[in-house]
Amino acid sequence: MAEIVAIKPAPEGPVSSVLKEGVLRLTLANPPANALSIATMAALQAEFDRARDDKAVRVIILAASGKLFCAGHDLKEMTLHRADADRGRAFFERSMAACAQLMQTIVRHPKPVIAEVDGLATAAGCQLVASCDLAIASNEATFCTPGVNIGLFCSTPMVALSRNVSRKQAMEMLLTGETIDATTAREFGLVNRVVPREYLNQIVNKYAQTIASKSPLTLKIGKEAFYAQAEMGLTDAYEYASRVMVENMLARDAEEGIGAFIAKRDPKWTGE
Amino acid sequence: MAEIVAIKPAPEGPVSSVLKEGVLRLTLANPPANALSIATMAALQAEFDRARDDKAVRVIILAASGKLFCAGHDLKEMTLHRADADRGRAFFERSMAACAQLMQTIVRHPKPVIAEVDGLATAAGCQLVASCDLAIASNEATFCTPGVNIGLFCSTPMVALSRNVSRKQAMEMLLTGETIDATTAREFGLVNRVVPREYLNQIVNKYAQTIASKSPLTLKIGKEAFYAQAEMGLTDAYEYASRVMVENMLARDAEEGIGAFIAKRDPKWTGE
Amino acid sequence: MAEIVAIKPAPEGPVSSVLKEGVLRLTLANPPANALSIATMAALQAEFDRARDDKAVRVIILAASGKLFCAGHDLKEMTLHRADADRGRAFFERSMAACAQLMQTIVRHPKPVIAEVDGLATAAGCQLVASCDLAIASNEATFCTPGVNIGLFCSTPMVALSRNVSRKQAMEMLLTGETIDATTAREFGLVNRVVPREYLNQIVNKYAQTIASKSPLTLKIGKEAFYAQAEMGLTDAYEYASRVMVENMLARDAEEGIGAFIAKRDPKWTGE
Repeated sequence: MAEIVAIKPAPEGPVSSVLKEGVLRLTLANPPANALSIATMAALQAEFDRARDDKAVRVIILAASGKLFCAGHDLKEMTLHRADADRGRAFFERSMAACAQLMQTIVRHPKPVIAEVDGLATAAGCQLVASCDLAIASNEATFCTPGVNIGLFCSTPMVALSRNVSRKQAMEMLLTGETIDATTAREFGLVNRVVPREYLNQIVNKYAQTIASKSPLTLKIGKEAFYAQAEMGLTDAYEYASRVMVENMLARDAEEGIGAFIAKRDPKWTGE
Repeated sequence: MAEIVAIKPAPEGPVSSVLKEGVLRLTLANPPANALSIATMAALQAEFDRARDDKAVRVIILAASGKLFCAGHDLKEMTLHRADADRGRAFFERSMAACAQLMQTIVRHPKPVIAEVDGLATAAGCQLVASCDLAIASNEATFCTPGVNIGLFCSTPMVALSRNVSRKQAMEMLLTGETIDATTAREFGLVNRVVPREYLNQIVNKYAQTIASKSPLTLKIGKEAFYAQAEMGLTDAYEYASRVMVENMLARDAEEGIGAFIAKRDPKWTGE
Repeated sequence: MAEIVAIKPAPEGPVSSVLKEGVLRLTLANPPANALSIATMAALQAEFDRARDDKAVRVIILAASGKLFCAGHDLKEMTLHRADADRGRAFFERSMAACAQLMQTIVRHPKPVIAEVDGLATAAGCQLVASCDLAIASNEATFCTPGVNIGLFCSTPMVALSRNVSRKQAMEMLLTGETIDATTAREFGLVNRVVPREYLNQIVNKYAQTIASKSPLTLKIGKEAFYAQAEMGLTDAYEYASRVMVENMLARDAEEGIGAFIAKRDPKWTGE
């Protein structure tokens, strides 16, 4: 992944960020584990929060440096806190709260988020991939939720996993802790595509640019509505989505887009 | 699709209908786009409403004439209403309400509905396919939800799509607007089978006849229960479905069917 | 399946049970149909209830003797009760209540349950497979929900089926009553793996032993949380699962497991 390294500034924290042509590339930069320590989660959270209202950011790619995508929570950091007066309870609560907030921030973020996975995504690392809107994996990527092997069931990772993967398949990953390859992950619905490692970055960028060419307002409306309606019964979902469609129709970008389509010209988005 | 044209009466409206051996074949007959204008949605709605209590109708096939299955909402009709005093709001609300009613009518219809798709099903056209109980596609069929390309996210189509297709796959269709082929649609769960175009009509008819040979009462009970229980938690779903089973057992058609099965003879349904 | 018969004690009831190295093997022992009569459901229920608090049982395998896995409810037994004063209503209610209780007992059981399927699993037999956490099938296994053929829609089986299989695929099975082979069942998500018949028992045992080597407390916590969070919206699911994770972290088995992982030694579970 020489290209990525080339355009990456010298990272100062556990997450590096590069904005180019509307695409914000966030890279976990704490190899080899890229673990979700409190510091790393805070850095990711800050990047996603900053990108929320930044009009220059249209799409976000979440990638990682090194051979491992993300090893999940930082077990050494957690273990140190077992010496706390409360045996670590307060720290574990803080870690879980930060993690749940980060994952929901991705799902509720107004900009589409694409995971670019080249290496092992394990436990909360697998959860990160499952929480993104899209995921593209190299043929070397692997996935697992192995908490059961160390006595700590992947109960929060499975919230995201089980919203991507069917029950028996999720249960197999969770109960056995075994690792699946990228092709299996695609069959399961955890990733959208598997591509040769040498083309991973190029293909993820193509997805990002395709999506960045759409109206940011339309993407925001649609992404929010997607996850909201998914939790509703059919009647409520249609009532809600119909209202969303009417408001969307009345926005300037829809008028422009539909007008351009009928006139067979390219649309010019204003984001309104 | 020469056979279909042969048995179709000269269409007077945007939907033609033919009833043959218990199978009602509804054909979108406004090519090339077969768009869901207010008139077309009203015609479809009227056909489905009429079929509801017509004992001669046991199964419904939803097909289309021409190369395109259905292009979704009629964008020219909608655009004309931007000149209204309210910038079209009332008309858009009316369109969305008619569309949501039509889609839910299919889901809640007492007769099974099979989509026969040979050509592009786009936006609300893709939603029509997703709303049917079964869908059989020719190898030439394609599917997309490209609203994002014209500034109008496919927010109502995705209500149906996301109840057929896993999250990442649905999001890829919705965020990129790209078209998938019939084989991909089958892998995603949007269609049941892909068959060579020249056999499409024959195979759909075989499905329809198979289902038409069952007890209409049993089909009605089962279809209604399927979508109802799908929105419940496990405890409620079992409580509800157990009650449905007991009532079904006490119906004459179950007594006849089980009796025939034990006696190894063909059942005779009374629909009671 | 000569090996199984060899280790099975002479069965006295409709279900035989063998406990070996933490794995409880329950075998439907009423061939050829292995039907879910009241007696068989009661025997299965009793075995699952007994295993709940038996620390010697870590994993449960549900298998069957003979060529058919399970034919579903006992239609002859049900038909006899049509002669009751209430035309069978009370008996049908009792049957459905016993069945719904059994299926939910499997889902809510603290020990993982693996279906080992070699032969036809039909109606409530298919529901049994769908209700297990994992299912491994031989290449000779087949599956169907054919109630529609006898006037009795598989309304309770579909509660489990539709939580494993996508909508259109479930509807095809339910509306046509047709049988799918093991490979199709795997594609649909109803079974995890398909293996040659001669290796079925060996591979199921390997799965069982793998899972039996984990902390029983962790398995219990995780399995319960999996099905609980699956019924929640995202915010509630994360709130709930985060609490589960914190309690899990504070359990002795997690401390032991994480400590062993960091120290690169094997963990010793106490189940606390």
